Amino acid sequence: MREFDLLNRVFAQNTSLPASVTLPPGDDMAAMRLALHTSTILAAADSVVEGRHTPLGGDAYAMGRKAILRNVSDVAAMANAQPLATLACAMIPAGTDEARVWRLFEGLRETALAWNAPLIGGDTTVVGAESAMSVAVTILATPLDCNAALATRTAARVDDGVYVTGSIGGAWDRATGLGRHLDFTPRLRVAQELFRTLGSRLHAMIDVSDGLAQDLGHIARSSSVTIDLELARVPIASGWNPRDAIAHGEDYELAFTAVGEVPAMLEGVAITRIGVVTSGEGVVILVDGAHRERSTNAGWEHVA
Amino acid sequence: MREFDLLNRVFAQNTSLPASVTLPPGDDMAAMRLALHTSTILAAADSVVEGRHTPLGGDAYAMGRKAILRNVSDVAAMANAQPLATLACAMIPAGTDEARVWRLFEGLRETALAWNAPLIGGDTTVVGAESAMSVAVTILATPLDCNAALATRTAARVDDGVYVTGSIGGAWDRATGLGRHLDFTPRLRVAQELFRTLGSRLHAMIDVSDGLAQDLGHIARSSSVTIDLELARVPIASGWNPRDAIAHGEDYELAFTAVGEVPAMLEGVAITRIGVVTSGEGVVILVDGAHRERSTNAGWEHVA
Repeated sequence: MREFDLLNRVFAQNTSLPASVTLPPGDDMAAMRLALHTSTILAAADSVVEGRHTPLGGDAYAMGRKAILRNVSDVAAMANAQPLATLACAMIPAGTDEARVWRLFEGLRETALAWNAPLIGGDTTVVGAESAMSVAVTILATPLDCNAALATRTAARVDDGVYVTGSIGGAWDRATGLGRHLDFTPRLRVAQELFRTLGSRLHAMIDVSDGLAQDLGHIARSSSVTIDLELARVPIASGWNPRDAIAHGEDYELAFTAVGEVPAMLEGVAITRIGVVTSGEGVVILVDGAHRERSTNAGWEHVA
Repeated sequence: MREFDLLNRVFAQNTSLPASVTLPPGDDMAAMRLALHTSTILAAADSVVEGRHTPLGGDAYAMGRKAILRNVSDVAAMANAQPLATLACAMIPAGTDEARVWRLFEGLRETALAWNAPLIGGDTTVVGAESAMSVAVTILATPLDCNAALATRTAARVDDGVYVTGSIGGAWDRATGLGRHLDFTPRLRVAQELFRTLGSRLHAMIDVSDGLAQDLGHIARSSSVTIDLELARVPIASGWNPRDAIAHGEDYELAFTAVGEVPAMLEGVAITRIGVVTSGEGVVILVDGAHRERSTNAGWEHVA
C-alpha cells in the first residue's frame, strides 16, 4: 500500500466539499474560510482503536464513522458550537487489506461530510502487523454566537436542575461488542436548540461517554458543586438495571444543568430532569429511595 | 495507568498558556480566541510512530518533540502562516512505564509551547503491549495576512527560480536511527521572512520530508510544470553523495519557487538557487552535467 496515493484517492472523493474549504487536502496544510465575525475556534481530539472501541475484525467503515461521531458528540457538548472540519491520522497494521483501509477512510470522510465537518487532512502510517488498527480524529468547531458562553463543565450553579437527553444504558453489548455505540446520532441539534431556547439559563454540559455517574462527577468537580442524582428518575434503556446503566458508558447522550423551565422534548429527543445541583464538594450523591450514596473511585459509599 | 488522570496532570503543567487560550484543556473541547480580522484557519495532521520515525526504545521526549516539529514544519511550508495550537492523540502499549508516557507528553507540551502552538487537547489510549507507541498531532495555524496568498504546492510558474534552504542529506543515520531528524529547527522564521520580503513574488513552497527530488515532484505535479533540478547546485551535507542526499528525506528544509531576486541568506539560514521551473508535464528533470534524467517511480530515467 502506498500511503500517499491512498490518501490522495480518498481525498479525490471529496467532490462536494463546502465552498468554505479554500485549500483542499493535498498541500502541506488545508485552509478554511471562517464565517464573518468568528473570533473563537474550538478543538478536540479523540481516538478509536480496533478491539477496544470497536470489535476486532469488524466493519472498518463503522470504525471510521464512530471516530467522527465521537468527536461530533464533543462539539454537541459545548451547546454553542457548530462543527467546522475534521482531520484523521490512521495507523494501519502491515498486511491489512487495502479495501479495508479504504472502508475506514470512507467511513471517516462520508460521516464527516454528513455532519458538516469535512475531512480536510490527515495521514496514514503503516505500523507492524501486530499493532492495532487505530484512528485519531481532531475536530474543529466555531461558536454559534461568539459573544455568548460555551456550556462548559465548570458552569454548573447551585439550584440548577440536572437533565439528560434520551435514555441511558445498553449502548454496548458486552458479548458481541456491537450496539448503538457504533452508529449513534450525536445530540448536536438538541444541544444547539437548548442553547437557542435557554440562552444563558443553560449552564454546564457534557456528553455521556464514560458513564452517566462518572460524567456528572466531571461536572461536579469542575464546578465545585455537588450533584444529587435521583436514580429513579434516570430514563433507563429497556432491560437494563439502573445501576449498571449509569456506570456503563458510550451512551453519547448529553447531561446538562440549567435554571428555570426546560422543554420535555426537543428535535424529537426526550429531555428528563434527573437531579439537582447543591452546594458541596465536587461529588455525585446517588439518591436511591431513602438511601444516599456518595461516588468514590471504587463505586458508591453510603452516606448518613 | 489511569488515562484521564495522566492527561490532566500533563495539562496542569500548562501554567504559561497564552491568554488567547480562553478555555484550556479539560473540557469537551478547548477554545482559542483568534486575532482580529482572522478569516482563515489552516490545519494539518501528522503522526510519529516509534520504531519507524524514531528509534525503538529511544527517549520518549524526543518522540514527542519530533511530532510537534514535523507539524510546525508544515506550517512553515505555507510561508504566510503562524502556528496557533496543537492537539495530540497518543497510543500507549500496555505495560509502558508511566514515566515514559510523561516524557512523551512533556516533549509534546514544551515543544508546542516553544513554537507558540500550545497543546490544547488530545487523549491517551492504552493499546495492546505488542502495538507500537505512536502519537498523532494536529496543528492549527492562521495566515500572517488573510488577504495574501498562501505558498501552496500549486503556485509554481514557468520561469520561477527553484530554491532550497540549508543543506540536504544526512538527517538520519541509517545505522543508529539517530540524527538531526530528531531535533531540527523547522524553518518557520525563514519562511515568514521570505513571505514578508518577497510578497507575491514567492510562489510555491513545500517542506522537504520525503526527499528533495520527491518533494519537488509534488510541486511539479500540483502546478503542472516541469522542474529542472541542477544536481551540482544542491547544497549537500558534508560526506554525502548528492544522489543519495536528494532521495533521503527528513531534511525539514524548505524548497520553494519565486520570481525575481531572492536573498542568499535569511535569519542565518543559507538560501540556494538549485533550478528553474519550465513548462511541461509535472515531472522533475535532474540535470547532472550534460545528462538529463527524468524522475520516475523507480528512480531516474535518461532523457534525450
